[in-house]
Amino acid sequence: MRTYEIATIPGDGIGVDVTVEARKVLDAAAAQHGFALRWTEFDYSCERYSATGAMMPEDGVAKLAGFDSILLGAVGFPGVPDHVSLWGLLIPLRRAFSQYVNLRPVRLLPGTTSVLANRTADELEMVIVRENSEGEYSTLGGRHNAGQPGEFVLQESVFTRVGVERIIRYSFELARTRSKRVCSATKSNGIIHTMPFWDEIFELVAAEYADVAAEQCHIDALAARMVQHPDRLDVIVASNLFGDILSDLAAAVTGGLGMAPSGNINPERTHPSMFEAVHGSAPDIAGKGIANPVAQILAATMMLDHLGEVEAARSVNAAVEKVLEEGRVATPDLGGKATTEQLGTAIAEAL
Amino acid sequence: MRTYEIATIPGDGIGVDVTVEARKVLDAAAAQHGFALRWTEFDYSCERYSATGAMMPEDGVAKLAGFDSILLGAVGFPGVPDHVSLWGLLIPLRRAFSQYVNLRPVRLLPGTTSVLANRTADELEMVIVRENSEGEYSTLGGRHNAGQPGEFVLQESVFTRVGVERIIRYSFELARTRSKRVCSATKSNGIIHTMPFWDEIFELVAAEYADVAAEQCHIDALAARMVQHPDRLDVIVASNLFGDILSDLAAAVTGGLGMAPSGNINPERTHPSMFEAVHGSAPDIAGKGIANPVAQILAATMMLDHLGEVEAARSVNAAVEKVLEEGRVATPDLGGKATTEQLGTAIAEAL
Ligand SMILES: CC(C)[C@H](C(=O)O)[C@@H](O)C(=O)O
Ligand SMILES: CC(C)[C@H](C(=O)O)[C@@H](O)C(=O)O
Repeated sequence: MRTYEIATIPGDGIGVDVTVEARKVLDAAAAQHGFALRWTEFDYSCERYSATGAMMPEDGVAKLAGFDSILLGAVGFPGVPDHVSLWGLLIPLRRAFSQYVNLRPVRLLPGTTSVLANRTADELEMVIVRENSEGEYSTLGGRHNAGQPGEFVLQESVFTRVGVERIIRYSFELARTRSKRVCSATKSNGIIHTMPFWDEIFELVAAEYADVAAEQCHIDALAARMVQHPDRLDVIVASNLFGDILSDLAAAVTGGLGMAPSGNINPERTHPSMFEAVHGSAPDIAGKGIANPVAQILAATMMLDHLGEVEAARSVNAAVEKVLEEGRVATPDLGGKATTEQLGTAIAEAL
Repeated sequence: MRTYEIATIPGDGIGVDVTVEARKVLDAAAAQHGFALRWTEFDYSCERYSATGAMMPEDGVAKLAGFDSILLGAVGFPGVPDHVSLWGLLIPLRRAFSQYVNLRPVRLLPGTTSVLANRTADELEMVIVRENSEGEYSTLGGRHNAGQPGEFVLQESVFTRVGVERIIRYSFELARTRSKRVCSATKSNGIIHTMPFWDEIFELVAAEYADVAAEQCHIDALAARMVQHPDRLDVIVASNLFGDILSDLAAAVTGGLGMAPSGNINPERTHPSMFEAVHGSAPDIAGKGIANPVAQILAATMMLDHLGEVEAARSVNAAVEKVLEEGRVATPDLGGKATTEQLGTAIAEAL
């Protein structure tokens, strides 16, 4: 039997709650489609940090390297500064495994409503292709004149030609499988070194894809467009920071953060890819059984897709839609009274 | 008679169309309230750039220094790269005159509807206090290894203690005159040098304002919150880039970009402040008489306020509301057939 080795890092807060449900649904899908998933759990988390001073062991990255994929819950916990938890786990993994694409599809699922007035589901479907390995998230920089009147901090953004070109190319390839439209998020009017460079490469790559309509839009105008004319957007390619902002906004105007999955993808498959929900660890509701597991389950279907189990991914998506459409089993954020576990089970059973 | 010396820079595109209307309305308000505005027009613009190679003359800044205020239309024109037009005019003025506050109030005006479902006007009123002098918009950085495989660009963000502290302090002072709530836009989880510094100063200043509720929110979550729970936002303080994004988004969820004014303010009045609409020069509709002049007229009322003509500012605001409420005279973006000029005249007459 085809067997996939999956590393799972439930992490913190509701990450733990929702990962269990994603595993349950995936195991059911695997049984149905004739393959198996062998799960190995890792305790990398803020809890681990509190106990040991490190989010993961020194060979933490190496331990994951042999797996076919990684399913990540969420990281973050009060008392552990965010930049510690993220730069100690999430960001190093994204980089070590060259997961340079962060793919964030959103759409309005059945049984959910948009915060936008008068929008139909087919007007609210898009995907953010976020650069995931460089850009505004950088360790270069620091503080000068600490404690002096002239104190200041510097933060370096770094964009390489290789890094920009590969993410833009990915977005055009993706657009060929969808609407054949790519919109690039820029800010070359205000940010004058990196963003004109980004635009320049975008134009070069666009010229190779004559069959795809390419446009550029400043990040401020693009955020406005996402609420005013979301129907005119499909594939959006964006830097690390812009992609982060746009994908939360896109999730908010479609079904909400509880429904948005994310894949950290290594397209060349030289290292494992990693799948997670867009939402965070929400410590305030952790362990209460009220977290919505849908985003995590959809992230798991992106993992199935990536593993080549396209049929199984399709069944899970259909099961999610069916359960949401019926609306009988729904967590509080969806207007129901079901627990995380009940919703996970309902989706597994709907398969 | 009290007379104010006003420099006006209509600039490009619809900037020209709407500035005429703002002057008309302000002159009417001045006549009514017993003061005068003496206008001096400057041709700084992309058109000037195309003819002379510079957006403004070498002593362009010095020429404006003696005025009481500046009313700016918009800059930007196809063929002139945005970073040229902005770094050749808008950004140098903001910096030379130490207009370190970019104040961007938004609210849902009568006669307009929100793109958000089920939101009332009083849930859609907030103000973005944008840092306007440093941050992500910086000339430091450059390109390395041009044309080589290892090519990359660097872009430096610069945050000074002085710069961060004064903008945050301004936001707390402003909050005292409004809801007594300040939300700070951050991204200290991803951007690890500048944003933790910003947060640190925010906390220090917040401690001095025990009567104001202070909270911090990551820019991604804040963008989501702006569409999901705009009612929970009032004063938002943000860096140059984040403020730029949030204010366009805020304008989009309230009445749209046609209604959003902006003040580039020097709070110490050591130099003139400058008022403009949030929208750009929209060359595609320039000169057609269809641009909505309301944002520019509201920017002009911010100018009156700043000059100390608070009563006059109030009358203009009331006139704008009255005309919008009646809805008889409305530009195409507001669902009407009136021209820019007709709407400007209607507002002047409603005074
Ligand atoms: C044109 C651009 C540089 C400018 C900015 O980002 O400051 C504009 O978007 C604005 O908001 O005033
Ligand atoms: C937590 C944070 C660093 C992270 C990011 O910005 O990458 C998160 O917001 C995300 O979107 O995955």
